[in-house]
Amino acid sequence: MRRALRDSGRGAAAPRAGGTERPAATDRLGAAEAAAIDAWWRAANYLSVGQIYLLDNPLLREELRPGHIKPRLLGHWGTSPGLNFCYAHLNRVIRARDLDMIYIMGPGHGGPAAVANAWLEGTYSEVYPDVSRDAAGMARLFRQFSFPGGVPSHVAPETPGSIHEGGELGYSLAHAYGAAFDNPDLVVACIVGDGEAETGPLAASWHSGTWLDPVRDGAVLPILHLNGYKIANPAVLARIPEEELTLLLSGYGYRPILVSGDEPAAMHQKMAAALDQALDEIARIQEAARDARAEGPDGQANGRVRWPMIVLRTPKGWTGPKEVDGLPVEGTWRSHQVPLSRVRDDPEHLARLEDWLRSYRPDELFDADGRPVETLRELPPRGRRRMSANPHANGGELLRPLVLPDFRLYGVEVDGPGERTAEPTRVLGAWLRDVLAANRGRFRLMGPDETASNRLDAVFEVTDRVFRAERYPTDEHQGPHGQVMEVLSEHLCQGWLEGYLLTGRHGLFNSYEAFVHIVDAMFNQHAKWLEVTRRLAWRRPIASLNYLLSSHVWRQDHNGFTHQDPGFLDVVMNKKPEIVRVYLPPDANTLLSVTDHCLRSRDYVNVVVAGKQPSPNWLPMDQAIAHCTRGLGIWEWASTGGGGDPDVVMACAGDVPTLETLAAVDLLRQYFPELRVRVVNVVDLMRLQPDTEHPHGLSDRDFDMIFTADRPVIFAFHGYPYLIHRLAYRRAGHPNLHVRGYKEEGTTTTPFDMVMMNDLDRYHLVMDVIDRVPSLGGRVAHIRQRMADKRLAMRVHTREHGEDAPEVRDWVWPYGGAS
Amino acid sequence: MRRALRDSGRGAAAPRAGGTERPAATDRLGAAEAAAIDAWWRAANYLSVGQIYLLDNPLLREELRPGHIKPRLLGHWGTSPGLNFCYAHLNRVIRARDLDMIYIMGPGHGGPAAVANAWLEGTYSEVYPDVSRDAAGMARLFRQFSFPGGVPSHVAPETPGSIHEGGELGYSLAHAYGAAFDNPDLVVACIVGDGEAETGPLAASWHSGTWLDPVRDGAVLPILHLNGYKIANPAVLARIPEEELTLLLSGYGYRPILVSGDEPAAMHQKMAAALDQALDEIARIQEAARDARAEGPDGQANGRVRWPMIVLRTPKGWTGPKEVDGLPVEGTWRSHQVPLSRVRDDPEHLARLEDWLRSYRPDELFDADGRPVETLRELPPRGRRRMSANPHANGGELLRPLVLPDFRLYGVEVDGPGERTAEPTRVLGAWLRDVLAANRGRFRLMGPDETASNRLDAVFEVTDRVFRAERYPTDEHQGPHGQVMEVLSEHLCQGWLEGYLLTGRHGLFNSYEAFVHIVDAMFNQHAKWLEVTRRLAWRRPIASLNYLLSSHVWRQDHNGFTHQDPGFLDVVMNKKPEIVRVYLPPDANTLLSVTDHCLRSRDYVNVVVAGKQPSPNWLPMDQAIAHCTRGLGIWEWASTGGGGDPDVVMACAGDVPTLETLAAVDLLRQYFPELRVRVVNVVDLMRLQPDTEHPHGLSDRDFDMIFTADRPVIFAFHGYPYLIHRLAYRRAGHPNLHVRGYKEEGTTTTPFDMVMMNDLDRYHLVMDVIDRVPSLGGRVAHIRQRMADKRLAMRVHTREHGEDAPEVRDWVWPYGGAS
Repeated sequence: MRRALRDSGRGAAAPRAGGTERPAATDRLGAAEAAAIDAWWRAANYLSVGQIYLLDNPLLREELRPGHIKPRLLGHWGTSPGLNFCYAHLNRVIRARDLDMIYIMGPGHGGPAAVANAWLEGTYSEVYPDVSRDAAGMARLFRQFSFPGGVPSHVAPETPGSIHEGGELGYSLAHAYGAAFDNPDLVVACIVGDGEAETGPLAASWHSGTWLDPVRDGAVLPILHLNGYKIANPAVLARIPEEELTLLLSGYGYRPILVSGDEPAAMHQKMAAALDQALDEIARIQEAARDARAEGPDGQANGRVRWPMIVLRTPKGWTGPKEVDGLPVEGTWRSHQVPLSRVRDDPEHLARLEDWLRSYRPDELFDADGRPVETLRELPPRGRRRMSANPHANGGELLRPLVLPDFRLYGVEVDGPGERTAEPTRVLGAWLRDVLAANRGRFRLMGPDETASNRLDAVFEVTDRVFRAERYPTDEHQGPHGQVMEVLSEHLCQGWLEGYLLTGRHGLFNSYEAFVHIVDAMFNQHAKWLEVTRRLAWRRPIASLNYLLSSHVWRQDHNGFTHQDPGFLDVVMNKKPEIVRVYLPPDANTLLSVTDHCLRSRDYVNVVVAGKQPSPNWLPMDQAIAHCTRGLGIWEWASTGGGGDPDVVMACAGDVPTLETLAAVDLLRQYFPELRVRVVNVVDLMRLQPDTEHPHGLSDRDFDMIFTADRPVIFAFHGYPYLIHRLAYRRAGHPNLHVRGYKEEGTTTTPFDMVMMNDLDRYHLVMDVIDRVPSLGGRVAHIRQRMADKRLAMRVHTREHGEDAPEVRDWVWPYGGAS
Repeated sequence: MRRALRDSGRGAAAPRAGGTERPAATDRLGAAEAAAIDAWWRAANYLSVGQIYLLDNPLLREELRPGHIKPRLLGHWGTSPGLNFCYAHLNRVIRARDLDMIYIMGPGHGGPAAVANAWLEGTYSEVYPDVSRDAAGMARLFRQFSFPGGVPSHVAPETPGSIHEGGELGYSLAHAYGAAFDNPDLVVACIVGDGEAETGPLAASWHSGTWLDPVRDGAVLPILHLNGYKIANPAVLARIPEEELTLLLSGYGYRPILVSGDEPAAMHQKMAAALDQALDEIARIQEAARDARAEGPDGQANGRVRWPMIVLRTPKGWTGPKEVDGLPVEGTWRSHQVPLSRVRDDPEHLARLEDWLRSYRPDELFDADGRPVETLRELPPRGRRRMSANPHANGGELLRPLVLPDFRLYGVEVDGPGERTAEPTRVLGAWLRDVLAANRGRFRLMGPDETASNRLDAVFEVTDRVFRAERYPTDEHQGPHGQVMEVLSEHLCQGWLEGYLLTGRHGLFNSYEAFVHIVDAMFNQHAKWLEVTRRLAWRRPIASLNYLLSSHVWRQDHNGFTHQDPGFLDVVMNKKPEIVRVYLPPDANTLLSVTDHCLRSRDYVNVVVAGKQPSPNWLPMDQAIAHCTRGLGIWEWASTGGGGDPDVVMACAGDVPTLETLAAVDLLRQYFPELRVRVVNVVDLMRLQPDTEHPHGLSDRDFDMIFTADRPVIFAFHGYPYLIHRLAYRRAGHPNLHVRGYKEEGTTTTPFDMVMMNDLDRYHLVMDVIDRVPSLGGRVAHIRQRMADKRLAMRVHTREHGEDAPEVRDWVWPYGGAS
């Protein structure tokens, strides 16, 4: 296949930094070929306009009447003709070169274009048989678009061939690169709109070539589509001098090829030549790198590559109405949505619409039955080579389960609870190393710059961090290829991983807990995508999006207040329960068990919060597995009272809260030996919800069995305390629930100072018990004061010495595993 | 002052696209001047290292012992010497040119550098008198750094001279431009770290020059600091070929000046020459533009400008230990935090630290009392010209209240509730127009691209959207200057506005509700900044950060599911109550009243959610003001039962929920005329919290008076329903509270289809009442079924006709203002 990528005998010119090229003026396409491409383009444009406007009379076999028009005109015309133009031309090169290609439409509001091409290719009718490729189907196709009960106005999960929605702009290019990684035979054509190009994530995405390996990865062909306007504003890249634009794109590492104009016949020739030039160049780059690979590790395969890209400059709303009501429309922001807006009420607008539709000459495009004519049916690639049917765009079709080593073999020995410590993420790292080694080419680990600082550095025993710019001898574990992707852009980590998952592979994104908020909006969009795909049987399940949030809110000794925010959990919990999972494993073995589970799951977003600092190991592996399987449970070994009704429930979720809770239980045992204390640890936060709300939710009966319906519950929580209330407010015992969590209290620099500052420390938890459990005996006031004094003494110690007092720092659970 | 910006007689070379320049090799600095700058740099470096390591013996007047070393070594050395180097050189040009300059440190983890320079300049001791500029003060300065109860390890609100924390990287350049807008005499020096430069927001920020007016705005001098590494990885811009880097920065619109090396004496000369060259060029640009302004509107003042910038390439951890334990440290990622880590335990490390500190020759820098020697005290600028004391970096000092036209004069007439409709944001737009006109030079309106589509376009009667690239005749309201900033980057809108506010001006950010999640993380950081500044008396209050979220979740007919997410409110509510305010005005007059209040407030983040679609006007202006002042209230005119105890409370917050609630009340009146219904509308969401939690919170007594303690409350809410539960879970009546809100239910394309899909429609609300109010009479089952049938009929109608049934669409409150 690789050879086939190139169809031209011409030797491509060597890349030249900072230069631009305009394709040769000589005609690339023969007359018949040009006519066929133009026909396809006209057909797709016709179908795009039809979707926006028509309720009926799809083929204009009768004169257009107001009753044929939708009452509410919704959708975006402006970008659609450009998307259709590229689609038509990409189909030519797919056939000519037998390319394996998918198409990412950054301007995803051009939904009519995506649907139109999928229908023309026949895919749409294969997926949705009621929308057949004939007049009846065309009528349905038009009616359903942005219509109640129909399909969205944007490219969406419902659209065959799409892995990218584009509702929220900025992620197309990151998705494209994610799709290309580890897909050496794939070419990802990616339209970047000039509006989208103003966003930060897109601006950063241009650098992705620095992580793209021409040997093991596929290629991305960016097509920057300059149509000049956003909704109502000029777009920056369309309006800076062309010289600046060329410098910019060259500086990003590309060799831009400019295609500019508005005259269709000339533009077809230019676009065809540009695509041939770009694909020749891609073939040349890949062949050179892949041939060089045989010659040694430091050959041409490892050098820096200047990839081609296309800059396509066409009018916004190209081929649409030039003027409406005396104001210019084609080529301006007025064509962004619906160029003619009063079609039902204004006969002039209605007539203009009919003229516009007929300008595509539908009678030449569709036969008597409304089917695309023979030449159109013959034009597109066949079967899975159609971009609308390419299995990479329905990644679940290609998904193979991971080969997962037995995580139990990587666990830590636990003789007694808390007797020894481990760094949980370091323990996980050893397992992840073997996961990576066993799944080369289909598992990637993403992170801003923290694989090592998050103590997952065992992975570097088997792979490198990809980096294809200059490398110094002082760099470590940096190489021209590898399974670890590090870039100081959470947007790129997320976007690449989404693209990688959506095309049927697996991965994990590790990040600072506080800064994962940077991708809140991207998470939202991916979650919405998954929510919709679960309703579409033809969309096959994909691997879950897995977050490992280490460097969490409770241990920011180096960094302080700016690095403290556990609120991503709140954002996640707003999405549909079927999609989201949140895990707070309290130690190393539970972290292993939970992560193994996440990597096996499909169609979820899993969030795992786990510390990297040394912390006690509570559970032997068999108990850890059982505990994680239950999701929460009573820790009998830590409880007192012989299993009877407790006087108080000490609940905890998260590693630091678990430690403080157990230390508090130790104090309670010392000061109130008669008190019956039940310790409950929560790993799977979703268990707290009612079973009517979440598939993991506990029934009220089970919840009351564990938490009681009437005893005080002191809940030490990793995140903002409101989240626990929100999950548990319907429970009978909720009025007795008292939650301690993070409170936005300034900077701190020792671990215990941090928990004290937020009233989550062991002494405060004991005071909470005193305040809520009646009749603790006569000494209670003295003990309460002693706890307050202790806190004060601990604070004085840190202020004086700059580190935590040994009394708290070196505390170890003293009771072993027997209760 | 403008003339003084240039001190050189040389005519600067004309900007050349794509070129780079290296400053002339001839010595710029005389020997004495060079020595003084070097002394300052050594002093700042010494103070930086001292902060990270020393508990005592600050002047090394005795041999260094383990007891002098902090037990926990926290902080970041790697970036600090570069920050100090720039600071020293900027001080020279400030004095030579009498510049009004502030300093933004993108690598804000270099907190020691910011503190060191402020202390050397005397500002630190003026602000914190206990940290005096002598040996005792130096000891405190060292001890307090990243120490329990001390100051954060990052640049922070506590740091004099800072408006930028840099904990979460990516926003330095946006902040710098925000500070420069409408500050024509200000130069903002902005260090961009090469790690930060990988982020999306920073990548987009380079384009900010397209919005910078050389006449009315100040200048930004970006200094891209390439030290090669992030935490453990090479940085992209430091490792791409220098040719590519130059192309990239030229493409972004700059003229880069390269300064590269590691030999201090030569580097001082190069940096001095580069700064002179850059500042000469800035002066030339500003003079040309400002002179041209006199000559007409289309002169040179409106042309595109190629601003200078500096690329500074120095080793990471420059001047620090070259090797430690046989591994290279200076110039590598190992110097990122603490190059020598075992200083208390390893005599070799201790000796190395002492050598390192003494390499700065502290005895030459500080006198017997520990004060900076005479030449150092003489070196910095004076008074408010010191960057650490510049009032722009404590913007509240410069804040002038807005001149606000009387919003009551812009209200809509309301004869009877709901009799007429208005587009609330359009009504607001007329007032905003006059706000802008009355506050030129100190009020800006930011937005991705939606000022017009959010119907605020009245503002274009008095100002333009700034845009300094090519403009076409088809552009509207686009000009070389103006008070409206539109860029399709929420990051830039937010970052610019933050910089503008932090330097003492005012503004409003209008955005799509769903996509404001893009700046969740930026909001978090700004809120944290405000939380801290409120504890610092010397930080004067600044104008609030105001969000207007229009194009909200309930009206996305054009866009659908991707554009539906009301969760920003949840993110906001996690911050400290003293800082955040959320308003949901139900109509045009309440929107005016709320916005006026927000623009007058200080040190808050205000979020206003308001629709742009035509919707009923409920309250005449006097009632609207009273309602907004209360924050919530019983709408007597809509309630039944004569003011007695209600059978049910119908509560609502948000424009669409209010409409559906009143329509439901209408149905209740028809079907259950005896039912006593109380309608409560909530504008200020914070009122729902207990008064112990939020300063706006209602006491339990007041809450129970309004919502009752025992009657069913059906609450129709704009956002995710959990948010209401979270706010109200402590109230006595919470078990009776039933909330309807947004539920993540797919795409819809008509307004009523949307509320039906989420069970927030009038019929469902009536069914909720039926389900929760006991003894409604014998017909209740029939009526419930009728409601269910109605819903079905409405849905069938939309599916059939593509628009809402007239029955719901045209519904008007039929009872006037009398109850």
